[in-house]
Amino acid sequence: MENNSPSGTTTPLLPAIDSPEDLRRLSKEQLPQLCSEIRNYLISELSNNPGHFASSMGAVELTVALHYVFNTPYDRIVWDVGHQAYGHKLLTGRREAFKGNRKLGGISGFPNPAESQYDTFSAGHASNSISAALGMAVASELQKDNPRRNVVAVIGDASISGGLAFEGINNAANTPNNLLIILNDNDMSIDSNVGSLNSYMAHLTASKGYNDLRYKLYRGLRRMGMVSDRQKGSIMRFNNSLKSLLAHQQNIFEGLNIRYFGPFDGHDIDRIVRVLTDIRDMKGPRILHLRTVKGKGYAPAEKDPAHWHAPGRFNPATGERAESKAGGGCPMKYQDVMGQALTELARHDAGITGITAAMLSGTSMSVMQAEMPDRVFDVGISEGHAVTFAGGLAKDGMKPFVAIYSSFLQRAYDHIIHDVAIQNLPVTFCIDRAGLVGEDGPTHHGAFDLSYLRSIPNMTVGAPSDEQTLRDMIYTAATVKHGPLAIRYPRGAGRNVPPFPPMAPLTPGKGRKLAEGDSDVAVLSIGVTEAAEGVRMAAEKHGVKASLYDMLWLKPLDGALLREALSRHSRIVTVEDGCRQGGFGSAVLEWLADNGFGHVPVSRLGLPDSFITQGTPAQLREICGIDAGAICRAIVNQKS
Amino acid sequence: MENNSPSGTTTPLLPAIDSPEDLRRLSKEQLPQLCSEIRNYLISELSNNPGHFASSMGAVELTVALHYVFNTPYDRIVWDVGHQAYGHKLLTGRREAFKGNRKLGGISGFPNPAESQYDTFSAGHASNSISAALGMAVASELQKDNPRRNVVAVIGDASISGGLAFEGINNAANTPNNLLIILNDNDMSIDSNVGSLNSYMAHLTASKGYNDLRYKLYRGLRRMGMVSDRQKGSIMRFNNSLKSLLAHQQNIFEGLNIRYFGPFDGHDIDRIVRVLTDIRDMKGPRILHLRTVKGKGYAPAEKDPAHWHAPGRFNPATGERAESKAGGGCPMKYQDVMGQALTELARHDAGITGITAAMLSGTSMSVMQAEMPDRVFDVGISEGHAVTFAGGLAKDGMKPFVAIYSSFLQRAYDHIIHDVAIQNLPVTFCIDRAGLVGEDGPTHHGAFDLSYLRSIPNMTVGAPSDEQTLRDMIYTAATVKHGPLAIRYPRGAGRNVPPFPPMAPLTPGKGRKLAEGDSDVAVLSIGVTEAAEGVRMAAEKHGVKASLYDMLWLKPLDGALLREALSRHSRIVTVEDGCRQGGFGSAVLEWLADNGFGHVPVSRLGLPDSFITQGTPAQLREICGIDAGAICRAIVNQKS
Repeated sequence: MENNSPSGTTTPLLPAIDSPEDLRRLSKEQLPQLCSEIRNYLISELSNNPGHFASSMGAVELTVALHYVFNTPYDRIVWDVGHQAYGHKLLTGRREAFKGNRKLGGISGFPNPAESQYDTFSAGHASNSISAALGMAVASELQKDNPRRNVVAVIGDASISGGLAFEGINNAANTPNNLLIILNDNDMSIDSNVGSLNSYMAHLTASKGYNDLRYKLYRGLRRMGMVSDRQKGSIMRFNNSLKSLLAHQQNIFEGLNIRYFGPFDGHDIDRIVRVLTDIRDMKGPRILHLRTVKGKGYAPAEKDPAHWHAPGRFNPATGERAESKAGGGCPMKYQDVMGQALTELARHDAGITGITAAMLSGTSMSVMQAEMPDRVFDVGISEGHAVTFAGGLAKDGMKPFVAIYSSFLQRAYDHIIHDVAIQNLPVTFCIDRAGLVGEDGPTHHGAFDLSYLRSIPNMTVGAPSDEQTLRDMIYTAATVKHGPLAIRYPRGAGRNVPPFPPMAPLTPGKGRKLAEGDSDVAVLSIGVTEAAEGVRMAAEKHGVKASLYDMLWLKPLDGALLREALSRHSRIVTVEDGCRQGGFGSAVLEWLADNGFGHVPVSRLGLPDSFITQGTPAQLREICGIDAGAICRAIVNQKS
Repeated sequence: MENNSPSGTTTPLLPAIDSPEDLRRLSKEQLPQLCSEIRNYLISELSNNPGHFASSMGAVELTVALHYVFNTPYDRIVWDVGHQAYGHKLLTGRREAFKGNRKLGGISGFPNPAESQYDTFSAGHASNSISAALGMAVASELQKDNPRRNVVAVIGDASISGGLAFEGINNAANTPNNLLIILNDNDMSIDSNVGSLNSYMAHLTASKGYNDLRYKLYRGLRRMGMVSDRQKGSIMRFNNSLKSLLAHQQNIFEGLNIRYFGPFDGHDIDRIVRVLTDIRDMKGPRILHLRTVKGKGYAPAEKDPAHWHAPGRFNPATGERAESKAGGGCPMKYQDVMGQALTELARHDAGITGITAAMLSGTSMSVMQAEMPDRVFDVGISEGHAVTFAGGLAKDGMKPFVAIYSSFLQRAYDHIIHDVAIQNLPVTFCIDRAGLVGEDGPTHHGAFDLSYLRSIPNMTVGAPSDEQTLRDMIYTAATVKHGPLAIRYPRGAGRNVPPFPPMAPLTPGKGRKLAEGDSDVAVLSIGVTEAAEGVRMAAEKHGVKASLYDMLWLKPLDGALLREALSRHSRIVTVEDGCRQGGFGSAVLEWLADNGFGHVPVSRLGLPDSFITQGTPAQLREICGIDAGAICRAIVNQKS
């Protein structure tokens, strides 16, 4: 395509861009128009087909500049958390496919290497981009036969606070590589001190001559043994740069021997292209700090970026959002049931404290925070710290409740074992987004928690089957003496309409019979499943009445209830929304084998041994064979 | 006790110290003598009963000063990694018990809250002290009825490079607390710039008046909204302190709003007591930086601290170490078998790269490093980064081998799932110290890896049964196309004497029959176990000849071999050195249930559902019921 639009009657640019090659044929002067078109496309598409909005709006210029300056896909762009990467998808051949964003059979809402060669790495969990990109940059150094490729990690200011990002930064200066870290900083409140000196210094430090000199000096000193390279100590190696001498200010990144450029206005496309071109071919790791505005270009989102993170459907003209306000008469979200129950209990129990890792509203820990701000701790993206911190609180007499999404809690697996379970500390884990989460797809499904928690000694693991049992489990965690206790519940709304009856204590390890059947089949379910529907369907369609047991607790498993079921039934169907390997069904098999019931046939319904795609939860339940139909078939057909 | 030893004839002090109360009755002038006695005690004990040596030698003054100045156990000392805490054990009523250090029934080699009220938190995995101590400090703030307690985290310069420590530091300034972080910095090469200015500043900043003023100023600014408290942004909040203005040097900790004192000589007991007294009752988080010498007070250890980290038995007079030099004629350690095999392969395959997280010699990745330093990466204590970095290398065509201890790899559980397995990347995990490790005890046993790896889709999991199969698995990982592949092997030496035959490829998922029996029992074993001895014992003592199958791969499980076994036998005994929940035996149960063999009785031998104590591996195998005797009993007696 040509740069031939006569001024006044602008020809649209975006429709002709099918790859970054097309983009790179544009003139620099055309880029602002392209940015504007991308924004309009995002507004138009996302107002109708919900997704993450504000982050990608803020990253438009950065995205265009990266593909304009770098030779993608040979050069690598590694996005940290894919929210910001929608513009990237539009520019890399997925403009039409974007209409299927987050849908079954459509494209992923996150960068997905299986989907495009431009998506270089998984990007569903925060803070991994620097480590992954460093791996690629080092690979390029080692593969001496190939032309060196540039590698860029793009990380937000929230993600960079995660321990993994720090570990990556801490290692970036220890080996030859040409990693460029771009800090996409959209926290407007961080530092208002962007004055003329900063701007001057930015220009100064971005000039190629200065930096080449500086880099050579560093390498020289290193060769001469005057700069230590032991990464262990790098947190202490303060590098007094020219900039710090000028400004009486030292920069953390420079302290870690990574050259720092910025901050620059992340919406000044001309400037960004210039700086990126300047620093593109430099050697050694470097960081470019861009300030961006979350939601940029759409006034309602700029005003309230947090609520426009993932706004649902909206009217593009007015900014009115279609999101249901779930008032009276509607079922509540499980997260709100947790938040409210915990708050009710905390009013009368000064020991209760709440902890969340950057998901204050996502976990509804915000409910308690609004009322008791001193007792709720949002520790940012640092799930490991959240759990160990809770261990410290519990050790000294508090009752911490840690609310983290199931798939993110995987980051804290060792912390649960080493900092909580070994000491049998009374930390309660409120595991949100357990099971199939739907549109966020494989990186976000809470598929493994039942399995990985079950093998940890001292753990108690509960999974409520409805809102009231969730409330009762929270009550139990607050009132009954216990060690580490996990309560896992799904994303989204339940089925019952509040108000709920008062909370009551449960006995950990005690399940219940929900329905008495007259066939040889007992269905054992844990968590929120379609077991009841499956049992009903089998009875209605096939006349097979199975008994239904709601186990409620994975660990300890209710042996007495299992014996009762086995006294009346000769076949078992287990239902869970976690992985079949090592999960609830597996626990039942172990119990049967250990207690002399190994001969009883068991059909285990659960998630298959693969990563599950995105789609609506109902679609995914069907695909995974854990929907009512699959349960019905297991009840009726299964014979061995 | 009294300070009445006439000069010249010093009365020993240590024998009369049964608790920190006794220590606090000493005069300041007596403390150097006490330090000297502690060192002599450590030398005398550890030369005979092996343990971690150099770290605790370097922390003697710090330990004495902490218990002298702080009101332990009401005040809390949280040690990061217990290596440094032997002196602490001697001063807190365990002088005699120390003779049973790391032994079955004796005291733990790490701080252990179950053992003493002075041991405040689990301390086997690095970098957790700041988060845990912050929890305790915040608990004290919230418990307004109790007198405020002081909380101290003591962390080494290696541990502070872990992401968890960074997350803790990053959160320490966000809420009212009085956390004191002591950086026990024994890396002598970090920064030789300890001049008069530093010393002057240290004195200046440690004075109470200055710091109280500074803290009030900070709190005031915060109240007035002039300092942001959003932890997300704290990495960017540069705090230009007086110190930085004087020195043209900014300090990372001050950048994170934590007051910094130091560096001081960590062996100047007088000075440390004075500084600790000065800063003890200050409000707000603060960090004290002490420089110490690893192995201090024992010349051979000072000279070569790395080798004296855990030296084994030694002659206290000469420093000669009894450690067997495992030359020709002796079995090799599994770690060395791995290191050598990998190096052999890397010579002919430029894609092979080695990664370790601060365990270069512990994993014998040092073997390859010595020959190919450019292709081995020691990333420090950052297991998560190690795995994600490997993911990046693999994504761009390299063949990374990540060698990490089993229990430490728990830190990287999510990274294995999200950064490797979802993308099916060819990263090989060399999981060292799998199963029972012996004297290091519950925090270090590799009990969970089989269980937590098995539920991850795309994973291949192998566990060699001897040195040659370990070599063959490494060969397989280097030569056969695969996704994520884990090879887990135990601590210590194997049984066979090198040289070994040339390496050969295995087929992942293919086990082998080791012995043909004539009874109804098939023993299925994975990894290095005593299965063969158990089978032999059952045959010799009871005349029951069981067949023995070495499954080699946990995932995929060898279904054909299982069918073969089931065609000849009616009972199964599974043997593993991992936890019974969700492990190998559980995988066998799942396979049987899924393939119509659910009726076959299975006896699962594995680690019980509890944290396993310390002891020799043989003692622990017996306790856990996975030794030859237990296997023999399962073969002979078990009927259902």
